[in-house]
Amino acid sequence: MEAGEGVSGATPTEEMNGAGNLMDFLDEPFPDVGTYEDFHTIDWLREKSRDTDRHRKITSKSKESIWELIKSLLDAWSGWVVMLLIGLLSGTLAGVIDLAVDWMTDLKEGVCLSAFWYSHEQCCWTSNETTFDDRDKCPQWQKWAELMTGHAEGAGAYVLNYFLYILWALLFSFLAVSLVRVFAPYACGSGIPEIKTILSGFIIRGYLGKWTLLIKTVTLVLAVSSGLSLGKEGPLVHVACCCGNLFCSLFSKYSKNEGKRREVLSAAAAAGVSVAFGAPIGGVLFSLEEVSYYFPLKTLWRSFFAALVAAFTLRSINPFGNSRLVLFYVEYHTPWYMAELVPFILLGVFGGLWGTLFIRANIAWCRRRKTTQLGKYPVLEVIAVTGITAVLAYPNPYTRRSTSELISELFNDCGALESSQLCDYINNPNMSRPVDDIPDRPAGPGVYTALWQLALALIFKIVITIFTFGMKIPSGLFIPSMAVGAIAGRIVGIAVEQMAYHHHDWIIFKNWCRPGADCVTPGLYAMVGAAACLGGVTRMTVSLVVIMFELTGGLEYIVPLMAAAVTSKWVADAFGKEGIYESHIQLNGYPYLDVRDEFTHRTLATDVMRPRRNDPPLAVLTQDSTTVEDVETLIKDTDYNGFPVVVSRESERLIGFVQRRDLTLAIKNARQKQDGVVSSSVVYFTEDAPQLPASNPQPLKLRRILNLSPFTVTDHTPMETVVDIFRKLGLRQCLVTRSGRLLGIITKKDVLRHMAQMMNQDPESIMFN
Amino acid sequence: MEAGEGVSGATPTEEMNGAGNLMDFLDEPFPDVGTYEDFHTIDWLREKSRDTDRHRKITSKSKESIWELIKSLLDAWSGWVVMLLIGLLSGTLAGVIDLAVDWMTDLKEGVCLSAFWYSHEQCCWTSNETTFDDRDKCPQWQKWAELMTGHAEGAGAYVLNYFLYILWALLFSFLAVSLVRVFAPYACGSGIPEIKTILSGFIIRGYLGKWTLLIKTVTLVLAVSSGLSLGKEGPLVHVACCCGNLFCSLFSKYSKNEGKRREVLSAAAAAGVSVAFGAPIGGVLFSLEEVSYYFPLKTLWRSFFAALVAAFTLRSINPFGNSRLVLFYVEYHTPWYMAELVPFILLGVFGGLWGTLFIRANIAWCRRRKTTQLGKYPVLEVIAVTGITAVLAYPNPYTRRSTSELISELFNDCGALESSQLCDYINNPNMSRPVDDIPDRPAGPGVYTALWQLALALIFKIVITIFTFGMKIPSGLFIPSMAVGAIAGRIVGIAVEQMAYHHHDWIIFKNWCRPGADCVTPGLYAMVGAAACLGGVTRMTVSLVVIMFELTGGLEYIVPLMAAAVTSKWVADAFGKEGIYESHIQLNGYPYLDVRDEFTHRTLATDVMRPRRNDPPLAVLTQDSTTVEDVETLIKDTDYNGFPVVVSRESERLIGFVQRRDLTLAIKNARQKQDGVVSSSVVYFTEDAPQLPASNPQPLKLRRILNLSPFTVTDHTPMETVVDIFRKLGLRQCLVTRSGRLLGIITKKDVLRHMAQMMNQDPESIMFN
Repeated sequence: MEAGEGVSGATPTEEMNGAGNLMDFLDEPFPDVGTYEDFHTIDWLREKSRDTDRHRKITSKSKESIWELIKSLLDAWSGWVVMLLIGLLSGTLAGVIDLAVDWMTDLKEGVCLSAFWYSHEQCCWTSNETTFDDRDKCPQWQKWAELMTGHAEGAGAYVLNYFLYILWALLFSFLAVSLVRVFAPYACGSGIPEIKTILSGFIIRGYLGKWTLLIKTVTLVLAVSSGLSLGKEGPLVHVACCCGNLFCSLFSKYSKNEGKRREVLSAAAAAGVSVAFGAPIGGVLFSLEEVSYYFPLKTLWRSFFAALVAAFTLRSINPFGNSRLVLFYVEYHTPWYMAELVPFILLGVFGGLWGTLFIRANIAWCRRRKTTQLGKYPVLEVIAVTGITAVLAYPNPYTRRSTSELISELFNDCGALESSQLCDYINNPNMSRPVDDIPDRPAGPGVYTALWQLALALIFKIVITIFTFGMKIPSGLFIPSMAVGAIAGRIVGIAVEQMAYHHHDWIIFKNWCRPGADCVTPGLYAMVGAAACLGGVTRMTVSLVVIMFELTGGLEYIVPLMAAAVTSKWVADAFGKEGIYESHIQLNGYPYLDVRDEFTHRTLATDVMRPRRNDPPLAVLTQDSTTVEDVETLIKDTDYNGFPVVVSRESERLIGFVQRRDLTLAIKNARQKQDGVVSSSVVYFTEDAPQLPASNPQPLKLRRILNLSPFTVTDHTPMETVVDIFRKLGLRQCLVTRSGRLLGIITKKDVLRHMAQMMNQDPESIMFN
Repeated sequence: MEAGEGVSGATPTEEMNGAGNLMDFLDEPFPDVGTYEDFHTIDWLREKSRDTDRHRKITSKSKESIWELIKSLLDAWSGWVVMLLIGLLSGTLAGVIDLAVDWMTDLKEGVCLSAFWYSHEQCCWTSNETTFDDRDKCPQWQKWAELMTGHAEGAGAYVLNYFLYILWALLFSFLAVSLVRVFAPYACGSGIPEIKTILSGFIIRGYLGKWTLLIKTVTLVLAVSSGLSLGKEGPLVHVACCCGNLFCSLFSKYSKNEGKRREVLSAAAAAGVSVAFGAPIGGVLFSLEEVSYYFPLKTLWRSFFAALVAAFTLRSINPFGNSRLVLFYVEYHTPWYMAELVPFILLGVFGGLWGTLFIRANIAWCRRRKTTQLGKYPVLEVIAVTGITAVLAYPNPYTRRSTSELISELFNDCGALESSQLCDYINNPNMSRPVDDIPDRPAGPGVYTALWQLALALIFKIVITIFTFGMKIPSGLFIPSMAVGAIAGRIVGIAVEQMAYHHHDWIIFKNWCRPGADCVTPGLYAMVGAAACLGGVTRMTVSLVVIMFELTGGLEYIVPLMAAAVTSKWVADAFGKEGIYESHIQLNGYPYLDVRDEFTHRTLATDVMRPRRNDPPLAVLTQDSTTVEDVETLIKDTDYNGFPVVVSRESERLIGFVQRRDLTLAIKNARQKQDGVVSSSVVYFTEDAPQLPASNPQPLKLRRILNLSPFTVTDHTPMETVVDIFRKLGLRQCLVTRSGRLLGIITKKDVLRHMAQMMNQDPESIMFN
C-alpha cells in the first residue's frame, strides 16, 4: 500500500525514520507526552489525529484474533454505553434532587406527622378530602407553630412560622455555602459558562470531578430549598456533565483523548437540560445552540439518545407524582388571535429590557464582588442574601412558595386552577357551560389582590435575582428569569382579558372577542412572558422555543412564543451582543472563542502576530544547531507554549513546531536515561543526525516530538479568515509566513485579545449583525 | 487605525498598493471577477470574505446619511424577508399541490357531477349521509362507468373503470415526462442528491431556476396523480429550494454571493420538509442532518422561521380539510409494553434490509439505465412503468388508492377506522365499553382478506419502487418507503395482536396482556415499520424520529421509534455506509465531500498531491518574469482552475494563487482597454513593477487578482487533517509546501478521488464507525 510509506507527524508510533539505538527509548512514548496542563487550551486537530491512530491500531489488531475483534467491537460500542450510563445517572440524580427539594422546601413550613420524610403533597395524598383546598389542610400535615404551640391560627402562630421559615432558610443556605467552600469550590454558580469554555477546548482540572458532582448535587438541593431566587436547571447541566466525565474515565477512548471527551460532555449537557425541563429535543438543541463548540452529527444522534434515556429514567422515578415528563405541564383550550400579537411583542420587548438590565447589573455586581472586600466573605454574603430573601418572601404568598410552583400556577388557565386566588372571577349564574370552556368574566376581588401581590413579587424577584446569581452556591437562572416573565405576562394577560371583557365594542376586540366568549388566556401570556425573559437573558432562540413547545405539546402556540423570543433577542442584542453566559465568561477571562461573534474588521494576520514591530525576534529553534543547554535556557527564559523549528536562523524556513511541554519532558527523560546527553549535546530535528566524531557529545534526536504539519497562514491573510480557521479547526496557535519565511506566531489568546480590542474600538459595528 | 494599512488579498477594493495609472481600470472591478463557471466548486472562504467586505462597506456608508442608514438596516433585515417569502410561497405551493393531487387522483376513478373540480371527499362533504361508508357513495360522485353506461356494478363496469383508470394514469405520466423532457430536464428525480451537492458548494446552473420551479410543481402533481409508486416529499424540498433561489435574486446580498445563497437554500430545504410532513422542527433537523453542509447558528434560527411560516401558510390553506398540519395525524389510546420492543427491533432489521436491498437494486438499475440503450427512451420507460403499475395496482384496494391514504389508514388504530376492512374484528356482544377503548379481539374474515391483500401490496411496492425511483419525472421516495414499512408493520402488528389474544397464558404475554385488555396497537407497528424503512433508505436518524414525534405529538412513542430507527441504521450500515442520496451522488459523480465519512487512513498530503512522481512539474507562474504570451499559452495548454505564483522557478517560494478565470478575464480586459499591453508584456504580481526603459512593452500588473493568502499545508500533514480542513473550511484547493518550498497542489477532486480509492482498498474499515 502506497500509504504505508507515510509518516504521521504528530504521533510517536510510526516505524520509519531509520531506527537508530538513540531512538529506542522513544518507542515507548514517555509518560504524559500529548497531555495538557491545567488552564491550557487543547489542540483539536492533534486530538482528532490521535484518536484516528488509536482507531487504526484497534482495527488492524482486530484481524489478529477473535479476542481483539471483540475488543474492537466493544470499543465501537463504548460511546453508546457511556450515553446510556449518563442518561441513567443524570435522570436518577434529577429525580432524587426533585424529591429532596420538594421535601425540604415544605420542611420550612411544617412537617408530616405520619412520616416526616413525606413532603406536604405526599403527606396529604392519602387524605380523603377531595378538594384541593381541603386536602392542603389535611390533619397529618402540621405547620411548625401548630406542632409546637397547638395553635394553627393567630398572630403568634404567624410570627413563629415566619421565624422558623427564616431559620430553616438560613440553615440550608449556610450548609450549602459551607460545603461548597470546604469541599468543592467549583460547585458554585450555574456552571454553564465554564462548561462552554471547557467544551471549546480549555482544561479546568477538577471542574467536572467526582467531588464537584457529589457536592453540587447536595448543595443544589440545599440552595433551592432555602428559598433563594435561583433555579436548578443550569446546575443540573453541570451535574450531568460531571456524570459524563465520570463515565469517560471508564473507557480509555474517552479518558485519554480530550477531543472525544468533549463529544461526550456535549451529549451530557443535552441530557441535563432534558431532565431539567422534560424536553429531550429541546435539550439536544440547547446543547447544539448554546453550549457546544464541536458538534458533529454523530454527537447529535448520541446526545439525543442520552437525553431520551435521561428523560425516561426521570419519568420512571416520577418525582412530580403525575407521570408527566415536563416540569410545567400546560394545556390551553382556546386559540390565540392575531391581535394578541401586540401584547406578545410588548412582552418580548419587556423580556429584552429585563435581559439587558439583568446582565448589566449582575455583571457590575459580580465585578464589584471580585474587586472589593465583598468577595472575601462569601459565607456572610450568602447568609445575608438568604436572610433578606426569606424576610421579604414570606409575607407574599407568591414568593413564599417555591418558584417552580409559582410558574406552574401562572402558566395554567383557570380551568385547572379554580381554587386559586388568580381565578376569583365573578361568574354569571345564568351561564352554564362545559367544564373546559371558561368565558371571559369580570375579575373578582381575589384577582385584584393577586395582581398587586404579583406586582410586588415582580419587583422583589427582579432585584433579588441580580444579587443572587453569582454567589458561592449552585444557582441556575432559568427559573428566576422565567418567573419574572411569567409574573409580568400574567399581569398583562389579566389586563388584556379585563379590557376585552369591558370593551367588547372596541375595534381591536370586535372581530375576535364576542361577549361570553373565551377569547383571552392569561396563562398563555405568562408563558410567552417567561420565554421572552429567558430569551433576553440567555439569548437562546430555537432551543427556547422548542423547550416551550415540548411543554405545551402543540404547534398552536409556537407563533406567539417565537414572536416574543425573537423580539426579546433583538431588543437585548441592540444593547449588547452578549448573553449572561458569555458575559460571565468574559468577566472571568476565559479564553473562549465564540462561534457567533462575526469578525468584520479589515485587519490582517500581520497586524496581530507576535513579535510586534519593536519586540525582540521570535524564539525559534533550529533543526540542527541548537544545543541542549540552549533549549533549556530558552525554556527557562520564556513562557511560550511551544517553539517553531526552522532550517537555520538565516533562511527562516519553517520545518515544524514543538510543544514546550513535550520538549521539557523529552530533555528530562534523555538526561536521565540516555548516556552521553549533556548540556553541549546538539539537538537534531532532522531525519538523520550526521555521524559525529566520537569526541563530540552524543546528539539528541527529537524529530519524534516535532509536529511536522504546523498550521501556517501568510501575513496577508485577513484576520476574519484567521478567526474562522481558529474556530473551525480548534487551533491553539498558527504560524505566520511570507513567501515561505517564518515571520511570527498567532495564538488563540492573541486572537481573542485582538477581537476584544477591535470590538471596543468600533462599538457601532455590533449593531449590525 | 492600524488596520488601515492592511490589504485583503482576495478583494479588488483596497486602496493601498501605490496607485499607478496602470491600475486604474481595475478600480472598477471588471465584470464577472469572482464568479464561478458552471459545474465548478465555490471557494467558501473567498465568499465569506467577500460578504464581510460588502458588509463593511455598507456599515461604513451607513454613517454618511440617513438614506444609507435605512439601506443598511434593510440589508440587515433582508435575510428575514427572504425567509418570510420562502415560507409563504412554499407553503402556498404545497397547498396547491395537495389540492390538485387530491382532485386528479380521484379523477382517475370518477367525477363530481355538481362541480367537476371537486375531489371525491369535497364532493360528498355536503352530503347528508352520516357514516363514512355511505358518504363515500354519495350521489353527486359518479364513477366513470356509471356516468357513461349507467351501470355502477357488474363486470362490464369494472372493466370499463379499470380501463379508464389505466388510461388516465398513462395520460398523466405522459404529460409529466413530456413536460420535463421539453422544458426542464432538471425537474426530474427527487432533487435531494443534487441539492446536497449544491449546498456543499457546487454550481449547477438552472437546477434551481424558475423553469425548474414551474415545471417541477406541475409535473409533481401529474406524477403523483398517475398512481406511480412515488411521493411528493423529496420534490417539495426541491421546489422550496427553487423558491429560495428565486427570492435570493431580489437581494444582491444573496444573489451575488454563492456562500450566502447557500444559507438561504438550507433554510428553504427545511421549509420544504416542514410542509411535506407538517413538521417544522423535523424539517429544520432534516436540513441540518441530511441536506446542509454549512449550517451556522444564524441559519438554524432562520430555517426555523421559514419552516414555521411555511407550515402555517399550509395550514391556512387547509388542503386536508381538517385544519391539521400533519400529513398523517395519529392518536393512540394505549401505551406500549417492554416486550413489544422485540417486534419493533425486528421491524428495524426489516427496514435495514429493505434499505440495503432498495439501494443496491435501484443503483444497479440506474447504472444500467445510464450505460445501456434504456436511457435513450425515457418517455417510453415512464409509460411502460406507469402501465404496469396501473394494471397491477387497480385490482388490489390497498394499491389502487393513493399511497398517502394507504399509510394514513395503516397508521390509525381501529377506534378511528371502524368501517375499514382492517378493523373487521369479531366483537364480543357481551362487552360494552367506552368508544375509545378497543380490547384485543379475534380477527374476522375481513382482516384475513386484508392481510393477504397487504402482503401482495407489499411485494408489489417493493418491486415497483425500485424501478420507479430515478425515472425522468419528479419522484420522492419517502412515501413509498414508508408505505413498505407501514404494510410490513401492520402485518406484524396484527400477528402479534392475534397471538396475544389467543395465547394470553404464554409467558411473554402474561404480564401485560390480560384477556379483554387493549394491549396491542397494530397502527403503532405500522408507524414503527414506516420509520424503520425510511431510516434504512435515507439513514436519517434524529430528524426521522423528530418528524415521527411531530406526527404523534407524544413523547410516549419515541422509544419504539428510536429503537427501530437505530436498528435499521445499524443493519443497513453493516452492508454499506451510504444512504440512497449519497449513492445517487456517487452514481452521478458529483464532487461531494461527505461530512460523515471519517477518513482513517495513514496517508499524507505528499501521497495525494499532484504532480505525482513521474508527472511533469507543477504549472506555476513567477511573480515578475512571465510574459502575457506565456500566461496565455499556459491557459491554453492546461485546464487547471488556477495557478500558484512563486518568487522564481529556482527558489519555488510561494507568494500567492491566481484563479484561471480571473487571469483570463484580466488579460482579455487589459488587451482590449490598456494601451501597450502586448504578448511580450511582462506580468507582474509584485507590489511595484520596476521602472522599465520606454523601449520595453508596458508591463501588466495583476497583483489585484492574486490571492495573497492561499491555503497551504506541509507535505507531512496527515490526509485526515487535510480532509478535515477541506470539509470545515470549504476549500477548492490547497497548496503543499515543504520548508517553505512549493511542492504541489491538492484539489477537492484529488481528495475525493483519494478517499474513494482508500475506501475500496480497505472495505472492512467501513464496518467500524
